[in-house]
Amino acid sequence: MISQTAVTALSEKLGRKNVLSEKEDLLTLGYDATPGLSALPDIAVYPTRLEELLFALQVARDEGLAVVPRGSGTGLSGGSVPHKGGMVLCLGRMNRILEIDEANLTATVEPGVITLDLFDAVMAKGLFYPPDPGSQKVSTLGGNVMENAGGLRGLKYGVTRDYVMALQCVLPDGSVIDTGGKNVKDVAGYAFKDLLVGSEGTLGVISQITVRLIPPPRSKKTLLAYFDTMPKAGEAVTRIIAARIIPSTLEIMDRTTMICVEEHAGIGLPLEMAALLLIEVDGHPAAVEEEATAVRTVLQQAGAAEIKLAADADEAASLAAARRTALSALARKSPTTILEDATVPRSKLADTFAEIERLAEKYRLVVGTFGHAGDGNLHPTVLCDERDRGEMERTHAFYEELYEKVLAWGGTVSGEHGIGLAKKAFLARQIGPAGIAVMRRIKNSFDPRGMLNPGKIIMEE
Amino acid sequence: MISQTAVTALSEKLGRKNVLSEKEDLLTLGYDATPGLSALPDIAVYPTRLEELLFALQVARDEGLAVVPRGSGTGLSGGSVPHKGGMVLCLGRMNRILEIDEANLTATVEPGVITLDLFDAVMAKGLFYPPDPGSQKVSTLGGNVMENAGGLRGLKYGVTRDYVMALQCVLPDGSVIDTGGKNVKDVAGYAFKDLLVGSEGTLGVISQITVRLIPPPRSKKTLLAYFDTMPKAGEAVTRIIAARIIPSTLEIMDRTTMICVEEHAGIGLPLEMAALLLIEVDGHPAAVEEEATAVRTVLQQAGAAEIKLAADADEAASLAAARRTALSALARKSPTTILEDATVPRSKLADTFAEIERLAEKYRLVVGTFGHAGDGNLHPTVLCDERDRGEMERTHAFYEELYEKVLAWGGTVSGEHGIGLAKKAFLARQIGPAGIAVMRRIKNSFDPRGMLNPGKIIMEE
Repeated sequence: MISQTAVTALSEKLGRKNVLSEKEDLLTLGYDATPGLSALPDIAVYPTRLEELLFALQVARDEGLAVVPRGSGTGLSGGSVPHKGGMVLCLGRMNRILEIDEANLTATVEPGVITLDLFDAVMAKGLFYPPDPGSQKVSTLGGNVMENAGGLRGLKYGVTRDYVMALQCVLPDGSVIDTGGKNVKDVAGYAFKDLLVGSEGTLGVISQITVRLIPPPRSKKTLLAYFDTMPKAGEAVTRIIAARIIPSTLEIMDRTTMICVEEHAGIGLPLEMAALLLIEVDGHPAAVEEEATAVRTVLQQAGAAEIKLAADADEAASLAAARRTALSALARKSPTTILEDATVPRSKLADTFAEIERLAEKYRLVVGTFGHAGDGNLHPTVLCDERDRGEMERTHAFYEELYEKVLAWGGTVSGEHGIGLAKKAFLARQIGPAGIAVMRRIKNSFDPRGMLNPGKIIMEE
Repeated sequence: MISQTAVTALSEKLGRKNVLSEKEDLLTLGYDATPGLSALPDIAVYPTRLEELLFALQVARDEGLAVVPRGSGTGLSGGSVPHKGGMVLCLGRMNRILEIDEANLTATVEPGVITLDLFDAVMAKGLFYPPDPGSQKVSTLGGNVMENAGGLRGLKYGVTRDYVMALQCVLPDGSVIDTGGKNVKDVAGYAFKDLLVGSEGTLGVISQITVRLIPPPRSKKTLLAYFDTMPKAGEAVTRIIAARIIPSTLEIMDRTTMICVEEHAGIGLPLEMAALLLIEVDGHPAAVEEEATAVRTVLQQAGAAEIKLAADADEAASLAAARRTALSALARKSPTTILEDATVPRSKLADTFAEIERLAEKYRLVVGTFGHAGDGNLHPTVLCDERDRGEMERTHAFYEELYEKVLAWGGTVSGEHGIGLAKKAFLARQIGPAGIAVMRRIKNSFDPRGMLNPGKIIMEE
């Protein structure tokens, strides 16, 4: 519980419209995009500048409140769910693009800037910010950094981590550290910046971000390939990489996903097929031309039933957009959608498809699988109904058994969605007691009082 | 001091040839490539497998010895100097390439593998490991990871950090953690792996490394440009990047360095010139052709006095090799060579050249400057004599004043050489008390007894 004095002080400092304390306002800040998780915070604040952020943290310290930082709430592991109540620290109103530095190829932003807004702003200057998480139209850079968000272009261009050059971070004790800079190389001291990326709001609150930009690719081509079995599609992925081609995008959808996307987007997908690969190659026009031809040959050899080349940029964009709707298309089909984030070394992709199929049958579940095949990063999605207890139990058994295999194959329980509340038990299995012990010590070293996003990522003792 | 019992136990377990305890043997393990720093350890051990490494650490714990991990001792900041005595843990005999995985594009090695050996081994399979520190013929991967080594290809391809996918790490308490994997994306838990990279042997001992490989560029072209003033060369660098060209290599040498390299390598450098840029563009042949032409145009516009295109791969290789001799060529000229590692945002490059020139004059010093201009990473090198106390004082004053500017411009005190013993005071100035406090807490969380490489990186209280 927060005292009335504290609420008043926050309203005075931040302005009344930037402080929410009524239950009906707070309800919408109790969940993110993870199904089945919600909670009611005691208060929500929207600082608009660093000074206000520091003040809010000071109040939280004085009142002994848990603090849960929040961007747009698009997270898929419960990372911004205030399950212990306390203060939701909404960073969406710290949303200025502070600088685009064309000489150093960097952009500096506040954490609440929308991912796609940054992309558009730098593109207007002939520069390119590659990370493109599925939620890029609403997600914030702060959230992207805290979750180390991936996206469709990860295979060739890497993920958010690969673009973060500097962070300004407020520690739970109120000290502000600046880590990294605009230097292309920097080995001065421990890599805080790299530790903060992906720390899911448990070590500090990011108040400023500097990212690296690159020249955009001059050309790209988009191909679609349909397969009559999933293993053939998996084999095609393996062969593309074996041919030493790194596409910018190499996405997969199974039939269940295709059916939902088709209902949603109506782009004429052939629903008798078992799988679709969406492949984008980009770069110098001559390289793109050759790679597209090479990819087509590999796809034929791998037994693709049909291969289409997008006629123009519009068609390519509509295909990519259709892929981006996969999750929402699946979500429309059933009351509950449990989306997972299993990731395996690429060589285990075909085995993983087979295992998902086997387990879906074993547990009598409808599973739609889509994801970043080139990264080995799959999103098997169970279409279910949380009111059906038996089905939910089977869903959990499905994931238990799947993750056991994924871990045995050297995979990871999360490729890009994070651990949050949803996957703490799986993480403990993956990194073992020694790993959890180090995490706990690191957490304590940043946040000895356990104020920041408590109970997230690390299993409680 | 180590007990005789412990020496005997180590000899029995590791074999006599893998344990050194005689002063004359230990002398050579008391320094690295940093001038002016040396010390005598109590014992040196060469484990050949993980079990022996764990045993050696156990003995060190029991005997209360400091442990200083060491690769080939090519470090340039004193990171492997055993200035508190204790045990030097030489990892050079754990030097097997364990696997090159062509399906997942990874290589897994022991820490003692020589950088160039890995490069050659993967190139034989048509793959590419880009990081190429100056010392790649002798340096080890373990050392590269611990120092986050850079190299000549950093501008386009990044540094060691960008290629480390997984580490096996032995913590000071003897627990072994595996962090990362062959997954292209992995957000499971805190990024230990990224924290360990560049931690200079102060948090754990790396016992196994998995790196990412990429397809090699199909073509490259090498250009040389001479300038009659340093500012013109700096301007050329700025203009190349402004033209949205990212060369794989963009190196600079000033006249002092050119003179020394010419004496050493005799490749016909025009010594009346003030600066040389060595530029390599690589990738698809058509892209390389266009970029080489565009670079040539930019160089002309920036006022290059002469531009040469390497006639063939051999000529290109000899130019790159000549650049790699810069440090040893300078080192032959004077009894002492103090090499620095100042790095600035690229836009401050020309200012930094001017400042180096001004300060060299002010302090009456001979300074040769070379480095990775495209990265803003310069190695101003004072040619001096450590027996001349006045000159050494002026050298230190030179660096003091230079780093003050570098930091004011948002630069860093180390781009690629690390902090070690040599730069602790500068680091404290760069990251401030809050930064140092966090470092100390992280160090304690990994190594509460301060056994591993004590007194390095962080200023003692």
